[in-house]
Amino acid sequence: MSEFSTYIESKKYQTKYRTEFITITKDVDSVIENSKIKNGIILIQTLHTTCGIWVNENEKNLIGPSEVLGYTSDLRKVLDNFASPTLEYGHNDVRDNNNINGKRDTHLCEPDENGVIHECINGHAHAQALLLHPSISLIVEDGKLLKGSWQEIMLVELDHDRERTVSFLVSGEK
Amino acid sequence: MSEFSTYIESKKYQTKYRTEFITITKDVDSVIENSKIKNGIILIQTLHTTCGIWVNENEKNLIGPSEVLGYTSDLRKVLDNFASPTLEYGHNDVRDNNNINGKRDTHLCEPDENGVIHECINGHAHAQALLLHPSISLIVEDGKLLKGSWQEIMLVELDHDRERTVSFLVSGEK
Amino acid sequence: MSEFSTYIESKKYQTKYRTEFITITKDVDSVIENSKIKNGIILIQTLHTTCGIWVNENEKNLIGPSEVLGYTSDLRKVLDNFASPTLEYGHNDVRDNNNINGKRDTHLCEPDENGVIHECINGHAHAQALLLHPSISLIVEDGKLLKGSWQEIMLVELDHDRERTVSFLVSGEK
Repeated sequence: MSEFSTYIESKKYQTKYRTEFITITKDVDSVIENSKIKNGIILIQTLHTTCGIWVNENEKNLIGPSEVLGYTSDLRKVLDNFASPTLEYGHNDVRDNNNINGKRDTHLCEPDENGVIHECINGHAHAQALLLHPSISLIVEDGKLLKGSWQEIMLVELDHDRERTVSFLVSGEK
Repeated sequence: MSEFSTYIESKKYQTKYRTEFITITKDVDSVIENSKIKNGIILIQTLHTTCGIWVNENEKNLIGPSEVLGYTSDLRKVLDNFASPTLEYGHNDVRDNNNINGKRDTHLCEPDENGVIHECINGHAHAQALLLHPSISLIVEDGKLLKGSWQEIMLVELDHDRERTVSFLVSGEK
Repeated sequence: MSEFSTYIESKKYQTKYRTEFITITKDVDSVIENSKIKNGIILIQTLHTTCGIWVNENEKNLIGPSEVLGYTSDLRKVLDNFASPTLEYGHNDVRDNNNINGKRDTHLCEPDENGVIHECINGHAHAQALLLHPSISLIVEDGKLLKGSWQEIMLVELDHDRERTVSFLVSGEK
């Protein structure tokens, strides 16, 4: 009879730009090692609504960064074609002194550590979140993440640069 | 050594219109409480093919309802732009007395409790289901659902008004 | 007190064409039976980046095959409308003797058992993978897969014909 155990850990990531794909596979490996669990599930969950988890190939032309290479990554094009940041969203129509008839009377953005209130226009980011995952579960076998040759675990930023938290649960037998 | 346990519960929801987003977070909380499980996984699963589970912000302009506000929600626009209900789908081309050469010889719809057979044209709803999730797993920590400030669990209706079943499994240590 | 157990099994599938939807529900049932687990989770995971798992209706006009019926399935149209195989992708711009200025200096494709190197143009397949799932978890209750009347588990090929591996983990109480 095997001993059942669970293990929870969270990590913070500072994202740098919109549609950044951050490979976090090493952190997933580290969490599994910390858990000492041999066989079971690792559940990887964001705590946010304008970023997501994805599992795919870490190939620069596919996922970027656009800035460094001088062209736009394939997936930024695909995400923006699906829900363009330049379209109008009711979610962006915030009622304030400059827009008395705005559709929303709440304002999501909060001042950062310098007191600057960032741009809150992120209707497209909520919509693009339809294409990613709030959480993904993967198999842990013999104390290792089970994955294919090209599979990498990624945190995908759909909003502006922000601090993001990803939580991990490992559940299984030691 | 912790005691492993599983707990399963199902709930029914009467949806009211196409692209309705129903927040079910309180029901998720209730299921976790009923399970008495402290640390583990809650798996939220629909039993249907034209609705889905989503985790995002419950903000009226983003998710609707269009009817009340007098305009179309952002996500109905995005879903319909992805797979419009007005396009032709082979799935909708049902062979019957009015359409001898239809592509399908089965008919999904059944009479409701009043004997009325509802419209079965739902190819778009199956396609839009690509954007949602048949199931989502989230972390349970210290007997509570782990979620971010803006995260709500939603059942999303992609078809017409129907009764829907969502099943919940909590798996972990008491 | 219940006895916790995990069970892992992998199966191989030879896909035949792009946007093939292969129903694997019987294999899921078989894995659950082999696991002897009564209540818990089955996690179904691909080990690839250009195919995915989906749960929906196995209806021929919806999912194909296009070849047999003489028309294109609804979902091939929807997938290709989302990320067309005919668009340009940076991921496809491979640097070789014929394309000195290509954006990528690695080449994913390997010779098959006959020494033939297949076409590697699969940027669209990575992008379409946004619509599917690298893994899906479903509920096991009383030793059976919990699913609705129309739900079938599918492996979806987004690339050309290839051998694919799907791994299954069952985790729960015997």
